[in-house]
Amino acid sequence: MKSIHLLFLVLLCIYPPILRAQSIEVYPPHWWTGMKNNTLQLLIKATDPQLGKSDVSIQHQGISISNVHRLENGKYLAIDIAISSDAVPGNAIITFKSGKKTQKVNWPLKSRDKDKVFAQGVTSSDFIYLAMPDRFSNGNPLNDKVKGMRDQSLNRDSIFHRHGGDLQGLINHLDYLQDLGVTTLWLTPVLENDMPDRTEHGYAITNHYKVDPRHGGAELYKKLSDELHKRNMKLIQDAVYNHVGLYHFFAQDKPTSDWLHEWPSYTNTTYKDQPLMDIHASKDDQRRMSDGWFTRFMPDLNQHNPYVANFLIQHALWSVEEFSIDGWRIDTYIYNDLDFMNHCNQALLDEYPNISLFGETWVHGVAAQAYFARNTFSTPFKSNLPGVTDFQTNLYGIMNAVNEPFGWTNGVNKLYQTLASDFVYEDAMRNVNFLDNHDMSRFYSVVNEDLSKYKMGLAWLLTCRGIPQMYYGTEVLMKGISNPDGWVRLDFPGGWPGDKVNKFTKEGRTEKENEAFEWTKKLANFRKNSSAIKTGKMMQYVPEDGVYVYFRYDDNQTVMCVMNTQEKPMTIDTKRFAERIKDFKQGREVATDIIHNVQATLSIPQKYMLVLELK
Amino acid sequence: MKSIHLLFLVLLCIYPPILRAQSIEVYPPHWWTGMKNNTLQLLIKATDPQLGKSDVSIQHQGISISNVHRLENGKYLAIDIAISSDAVPGNAIITFKSGKKTQKVNWPLKSRDKDKVFAQGVTSSDFIYLAMPDRFSNGNPLNDKVKGMRDQSLNRDSIFHRHGGDLQGLINHLDYLQDLGVTTLWLTPVLENDMPDRTEHGYAITNHYKVDPRHGGAELYKKLSDELHKRNMKLIQDAVYNHVGLYHFFAQDKPTSDWLHEWPSYTNTTYKDQPLMDIHASKDDQRRMSDGWFTRFMPDLNQHNPYVANFLIQHALWSVEEFSIDGWRIDTYIYNDLDFMNHCNQALLDEYPNISLFGETWVHGVAAQAYFARNTFSTPFKSNLPGVTDFQTNLYGIMNAVNEPFGWTNGVNKLYQTLASDFVYEDAMRNVNFLDNHDMSRFYSVVNEDLSKYKMGLAWLLTCRGIPQMYYGTEVLMKGISNPDGWVRLDFPGGWPGDKVNKFTKEGRTEKENEAFEWTKKLANFRKNSSAIKTGKMMQYVPEDGVYVYFRYDDNQTVMCVMNTQEKPMTIDTKRFAERIKDFKQGREVATDIIHNVQATLSIPQKYMLVLELK
Repeated sequence: MKSIHLLFLVLLCIYPPILRAQSIEVYPPHWWTGMKNNTLQLLIKATDPQLGKSDVSIQHQGISISNVHRLENGKYLAIDIAISSDAVPGNAIITFKSGKKTQKVNWPLKSRDKDKVFAQGVTSSDFIYLAMPDRFSNGNPLNDKVKGMRDQSLNRDSIFHRHGGDLQGLINHLDYLQDLGVTTLWLTPVLENDMPDRTEHGYAITNHYKVDPRHGGAELYKKLSDELHKRNMKLIQDAVYNHVGLYHFFAQDKPTSDWLHEWPSYTNTTYKDQPLMDIHASKDDQRRMSDGWFTRFMPDLNQHNPYVANFLIQHALWSVEEFSIDGWRIDTYIYNDLDFMNHCNQALLDEYPNISLFGETWVHGVAAQAYFARNTFSTPFKSNLPGVTDFQTNLYGIMNAVNEPFGWTNGVNKLYQTLASDFVYEDAMRNVNFLDNHDMSRFYSVVNEDLSKYKMGLAWLLTCRGIPQMYYGTEVLMKGISNPDGWVRLDFPGGWPGDKVNKFTKEGRTEKENEAFEWTKKLANFRKNSSAIKTGKMMQYVPEDGVYVYFRYDDNQTVMCVMNTQEKPMTIDTKRFAERIKDFKQGREVATDIIHNVQATLSIPQKYMLVLELK
Repeated sequence: MKSIHLLFLVLLCIYPPILRAQSIEVYPPHWWTGMKNNTLQLLIKATDPQLGKSDVSIQHQGISISNVHRLENGKYLAIDIAISSDAVPGNAIITFKSGKKTQKVNWPLKSRDKDKVFAQGVTSSDFIYLAMPDRFSNGNPLNDKVKGMRDQSLNRDSIFHRHGGDLQGLINHLDYLQDLGVTTLWLTPVLENDMPDRTEHGYAITNHYKVDPRHGGAELYKKLSDELHKRNMKLIQDAVYNHVGLYHFFAQDKPTSDWLHEWPSYTNTTYKDQPLMDIHASKDDQRRMSDGWFTRFMPDLNQHNPYVANFLIQHALWSVEEFSIDGWRIDTYIYNDLDFMNHCNQALLDEYPNISLFGETWVHGVAAQAYFARNTFSTPFKSNLPGVTDFQTNLYGIMNAVNEPFGWTNGVNKLYQTLASDFVYEDAMRNVNFLDNHDMSRFYSVVNEDLSKYKMGLAWLLTCRGIPQMYYGTEVLMKGISNPDGWVRLDFPGGWPGDKVNKFTKEGRTEKENEAFEWTKKLANFRKNSSAIKTGKMMQYVPEDGVYVYFRYDDNQTVMCVMNTQEKPMTIDTKRFAERIKDFKQGREVATDIIHNVQATLSIPQKYMLVLELK
């Protein structure tokens, strides 16, 4: 017995902080030396409701406390610290002393890995692939269900249950994606969603600092990042600032009473962006939009509370550094407090000048969309968000081009018209174009499984100004109508051990699917080396008779894009395009290598898009 | 014989300039002392092809020549003159000397009538009535057909022939208009249109300085202006800068070869505004838009030619001064050279700081419309146009509200959404709202002759932010679908001697027409004294269940507007509107004087709009 006691004492001496710190959590859990952002506010969360009364000190070279905030809820403290430039990596020890009781906790200060290339930004040179980790591929069936977590629903037969996909499944298919021409992976959130159900999407975060173990945890997320970077590919993280999952301690054990936006009775957001920009808006409408809850299970964070704001901003910086993130997609952008967003965006840009930020702006009208981004308006509120998910070229653009008969303001004229409004953006090349995403009906279903329309859409996506984004499975004609959204979140066939078909391989795909795949692959890989498309300008012409012509060009290359939206073949006179065709004689169709003469007329099959590299 | 010769000589001495000037025209035909604009460029047009070689001099105190421009066509000269502040009214004599030949022409310098109130501006305090002189009322059947003019088509049975309406017909009904609540008259152009056909609209001007004799000529136009001002009403002139009628000397005997935009073969404008603002536009599309002809019969003026520009600008100033104009509606605004328009607008505003200018902007999307007006964009080109005809609140607003089922972006949500984009304008209160005009289907036909929808439309028109404009006859439910446009340009019944019915009188109108008339009259007259509507602010709420609520308010008055677009009665909880209802207990419905309690709920009949003055 004695020896056991002794061993225990010895262990206590070796690992004193670990044992003593069991009941104290520090957010962020560590930081780095050499960061530009060197003043932090540590949020301390204890199980001890008296912790808030403690005297706090930190022992570490170069770290000093400037202020200690004792929050309403006695379990919490917020400690403002400064990390000086001579701080050295190592474990700082934070000491909490209350009367005779002393508790200590380790807080690591790490050194940055200077060799890592990340925060590169995702630009119009990239091609983004959006995947949902639970639905793409199951690389490790052992982590499909995790004991102790609330959602134990594992069941591939239900669109709302967990399916077991994970980060290993993604890692396993990076070569597939690279071969397809993808340069960048955007995942729906990978952080812990310890909610009782509907955890497949990831937007109900319950712990900001924990990668969901069902996805494989933090180390695997780092591995995914490394594997991407090894291939010169990039990683986008999906940021959720507006809300958390109901089981987050932000909601279960609030640090202050104003941590969330709370209402006398449950109040949903109106999902109506207009009051935010409307000079005629009522305060009530503005408040319901911004402070109403996104759903009953996602409490709305009060970003005006400085502790909340600091927590979120620091988490963003920490995530980029920790996981070597290159781009930052911001969920439900318009629902956030926009002033907070400006601060948060600026903090990321100050630390990582090249990182790209783009926000989800599911609104209606270019003026409205531009309002949430860097724009050319001299309005009282100015957003500093560099980019947006371009819902306008989707909802009032390519959808009309492929599905609506040509008319004065209809069909492809709508796409033309939306792009003609690009003057409202500081730089529309930062807009992210897409045909579908995890909330919208899949493109192949939207075009009623018409492969020619599908090919037109993809050709547009991969040649238009901006950053193209494809949703997983669209390359193999996955289908689904988003009512409810689970139907557009089906598993990638072949991503699970034992799947009957494997659409990751040529052999597993039908002829039609291979036609779609090869079309996308050809254009995406052409794009990889096309300076005209990646960084060149765009010139578009007024559509005539349902035929829309635009060019991507720079000093070295000219690409002519001709979209015939008619149900019949069309022949156009190319004289009108002399300003760009100049002395070019021929155009090589990228998808087929067929050579077309471009000096007189050009014939385009029905519902087809020619992408010609001019020679 | 001798005595006759002598008499001739005597007459020659008494009226020398008149006789000698028969073949020389001076534009503008006169000017005024005391104008801010005191440097002019006189365009001299002679029948003598050698006039251009003459030496030119002007004899008049305070007038000096600074330059003489000899234009390509020898019949023309452009003379730059300065009128000093000590110039006195009187006939200046312009002398043209070429060898032994001397020709003289009188050029009157008039004194301004300082007592006249005009150039007042037409503001949101006004209610504009748009009429077509040929189609409103025939006050003088003697001028219906004018000998020597090309269009001798007088025939009320054809929508494209002349019908004989005139300015006297308008003068005869000013009391009717004032009684209705109208404050401002806007006429389609009254200047000479000596074209072979389709002269009813007035937009093919053949002589800028001649009021069409079929309308009654210049003196009657002045009388109309005086009669309006006597009633404290205002006059808007319809300005056409972009083109002229084919039979104008601008086209028949061009002063310079670049006076018009001419093309190798006939080239119509594309009517597509997008290339003007599109950062991706081609030069070809821009040129075809701006320089293509509006129709084959309306040559496009080259406003880059400085002589053309000076002519047009001076004509604008001259017209305001000559006819005591208060507001200036600019036809086909977007087809003009926009830099020229900025100069022209500025010249009018420099001379008449209070005048209102609004341009026709038949475009699609608020960003596009705002591009042509003073806006909040910091784009390279900035328009200085103060106001626009608000096609957006029409095409993407009230039309949807009355005719389209309610939806997320449809029905009255579209109206709400369009108004929520007002942040793009410098001041949307200068926008001119309308339900119909001379180019569009009449509102009563658009709503399928549904009187409740009609009343909703009118109630909106007369309470929304901006300047309301009504098209003649809409108050008595005139009908017509604009295909072709002649069908919306029918005669006002009762405007012609011998008309079987007279809808200018209560007795002549049907019960339904009287209901429409009284509805409009009641609201328009309420508006006349409503500070909240005339100059107050607007607050609009997100529509719910097809019910759209907005307020007009200032410190003295609050008007609550509740539009129920549903096909069923609706009851709303007014709590949501506490920010504006405040302590008001009741609302008096303007149209019916019925008192409603506004503190709890409010019931609105189906397809109805309540306009309540809160008490």
